[in-house]
Amino acid sequence: MIGLEEIGKKAREAAYDLVKRTGEEKNRGLLAAAAALRQQKEVILAANAKDLASAEKNGMAAGLVDRLRLTEERIEAMADSIVDIARLDDPVGKVLEEIPRDNGLKLVKMSVPIGVVGIIYEARPNVTSDAFALTFKTSNAVILKGGSDAIYSNTAIANVLRTALSEAGFCRDSIQLIEATDHETANRFMRLNGYVDVLIPRGSKRLIQAVVENASVPVIETGAGNCHIYLDETADVKKAVPIVFNAKTQRIGVCNACESLVVHRKALSSVLIPVIAKLQEKNVVTAADEQAYAVLEGADGIRKELLLHATEEDFGTEYLDYRISVKTVDSLSEAIDHINRYSTRHSESILTEDAANAERFLNEIDSACVYWNASTRFTDGGCFGFGAEIGISTAKLHARGPMGLRELTTYKYKIYGNGQVR
Amino acid sequence: MIGLEEIGKKAREAAYDLVKRTGEEKNRGLLAAAAALRQQKEVILAANAKDLASAEKNGMAAGLVDRLRLTEERIEAMADSIVDIARLDDPVGKVLEEIPRDNGLKLVKMSVPIGVVGIIYEARPNVTSDAFALTFKTSNAVILKGGSDAIYSNTAIANVLRTALSEAGFCRDSIQLIEATDHETANRFMRLNGYVDVLIPRGSKRLIQAVVENASVPVIETGAGNCHIYLDETADVKKAVPIVFNAKTQRIGVCNACESLVVHRKALSSVLIPVIAKLQEKNVVTAADEQAYAVLEGADGIRKELLLHATEEDFGTEYLDYRISVKTVDSLSEAIDHINRYSTRHSESILTEDAANAERFLNEIDSACVYWNASTRFTDGGCFGFGAEIGISTAKLHARGPMGLRELTTYKYKIYGNGQVR
Repeated sequence: MIGLEEIGKKAREAAYDLVKRTGEEKNRGLLAAAAALRQQKEVILAANAKDLASAEKNGMAAGLVDRLRLTEERIEAMADSIVDIARLDDPVGKVLEEIPRDNGLKLVKMSVPIGVVGIIYEARPNVTSDAFALTFKTSNAVILKGGSDAIYSNTAIANVLRTALSEAGFCRDSIQLIEATDHETANRFMRLNGYVDVLIPRGSKRLIQAVVENASVPVIETGAGNCHIYLDETADVKKAVPIVFNAKTQRIGVCNACESLVVHRKALSSVLIPVIAKLQEKNVVTAADEQAYAVLEGADGIRKELLLHATEEDFGTEYLDYRISVKTVDSLSEAIDHINRYSTRHSESILTEDAANAERFLNEIDSACVYWNASTRFTDGGCFGFGAEIGISTAKLHARGPMGLRELTTYKYKIYGNGQVR
Repeated sequence: MIGLEEIGKKAREAAYDLVKRTGEEKNRGLLAAAAALRQQKEVILAANAKDLASAEKNGMAAGLVDRLRLTEERIEAMADSIVDIARLDDPVGKVLEEIPRDNGLKLVKMSVPIGVVGIIYEARPNVTSDAFALTFKTSNAVILKGGSDAIYSNTAIANVLRTALSEAGFCRDSIQLIEATDHETANRFMRLNGYVDVLIPRGSKRLIQAVVENASVPVIETGAGNCHIYLDETADVKKAVPIVFNAKTQRIGVCNACESLVVHRKALSSVLIPVIAKLQEKNVVTAADEQAYAVLEGADGIRKELLLHATEEDFGTEYLDYRISVKTVDSLSEAIDHINRYSTRHSESILTEDAANAERFLNEIDSACVYWNASTRFTDGGCFGFGAEIGISTAKLHARGPMGLRELTTYKYKIYGNGQVR
């Protein structure tokens, strides 16, 4: 098996080749890759069948098996997604700023690829082609490290893409998959400084935590979302009921789902009760603090069997389930403090008719995306108009919130002189 | 002694206070801090005398003692620098982009402070006040960890600043200094995730390496500069001689000094000889590869005693000394490959009269700052017109090259809705 340093060197070479390619050339490579996926469906499905057989033997949970399963339609969707990315604007080589200096030097700040992007992910094989398309479009080489559960599928997809690239005149090493799936290899991959310019983990909180703790390569944390909605004193119940219902229940397993309500004391009866009653239509369990519990337990239309007493732990938990916590506060300040303490800096929303309160919340909440009178579910590359998304950053450096193509670039200064010395 | 977590919490609280302050308020705080430094000169000088006494006892090298020494003038300069920073534009709270969406949501991408910035640095006490001024101006709280050699000076400066801030109505914890100087504390500081948003090491390569290897907090690498100048086939000797002389000898100890020449074979006689002859006026030692050595050793005006045979190690070394390596190449491609292999991605320059070659070099060299016909010494916040500089990033994420005020900010999305659900 090929060593990690060797993989790193090949990725760097591929990146140096990609930096020379025009947007048009790269789009040709993407279309060739999409066509190859469609042509090689049988090969990919056969590999996927092996992964599914192991999954069954290992007793994998049904939800995970569904994420692992490929079908003709899903492979077509992967190819379609590559074609969509080819259609987007090339974010590389843009002049971001021009700075003329008195000594005649002209500084041009240009967008450029990051170089070599590492992705560590779990069972979903479609990440293999998605991550390839996004990084290739931005002239980055990518090194992928998927989970052992999808190794046959990932290897098949990567091989199809590599062959297609090679036939289309590109370095096949623009995409490489690390075939070893042990932890030791993963840990060494996270410390491949000099070869890997950034590592983006995609998957469970545990995976992301392991990457943050072990990596010496720069990491962009993604995906952990303990998202809050604050029901202010003047929240409009006609907006609050559908917004919370949407944010909590439209898709429970996603990072931009609402996990916690913070409620102004004066909105407990008028707003919280109808909001929880609506959530209970989907059997959402509410872990309420004392004040909220007292108001909810005797209220009309509230099923007491779906109420729990909240513990400290509830406020720090991203449930990803039909469950929500409720914290009562006496003021906007207290709401902001609570949220800044427990949030994962992903997405939070204030529901209020008071514009000054809204503006204060938007300014003082320390999260990537802060909403006024809207659902947290909009934190998404598609909803933001980015066309594509590699993940949602909860980091503060380089990229925050949805990461599209532009967030896969960095910049350099090109400086034009005619003999200047200092 | 106060624990690191406690320091982290206080920094976070200070950061949440700072985010509410206007540019005008912050400038008032900066001017108060500058005035306090001037008023408390005696206290600071007395503390510095203690550090100097230890330095003498420990046999510190003269160059380092000079960097450690404070004088009335140097304290005035520190205060002046704070006043200069107060005069700069506030980079926080700027609308970077507005994205209206079809569903009526309005996304506003705003510049915001990073939050809590950690700085790990070595003996120069002026970093204490510089780092404070830059971070305070950008509404960031700062936690400083200086070297043991300057502990009395740093503590005195930090205390003067903290008292001044408190008297001016700000959180004194906007600046905190970690008083423990042991490695264990430094290592725990580098892993203070949740409290520290970014760590910027300033100092020797060894220090920076230790931070990169041990930190789990995001790091922006700074300062390592193995900078190259490429003398192309058509380099103009009238530009090349002063540019290389400036880049190599104007200040040998800085990260943007030139450490290596790459020379097209056809420029060896016409350009390299006069370039090296000029460097030899300052007794610069040249470690030349075989081809260059052969050309140089017999040349008129070249002192052979200043010539060495280059080893592989020379090409990877940032000398920070009166020494330069020379690599001969047969083509621009070979020059680019060599530089991308050995550079630290800081600053490189091509000297050529061929515009196509220059443009190719500027595009394909993977460094923060790439020059055409100019000295690498211009990579500097002042020269770039940034007004101030916290360091020069050799990282690729978030900030590249000189880091001014803007590079100490990040962004968030403020999203205005009126009831939108997905």
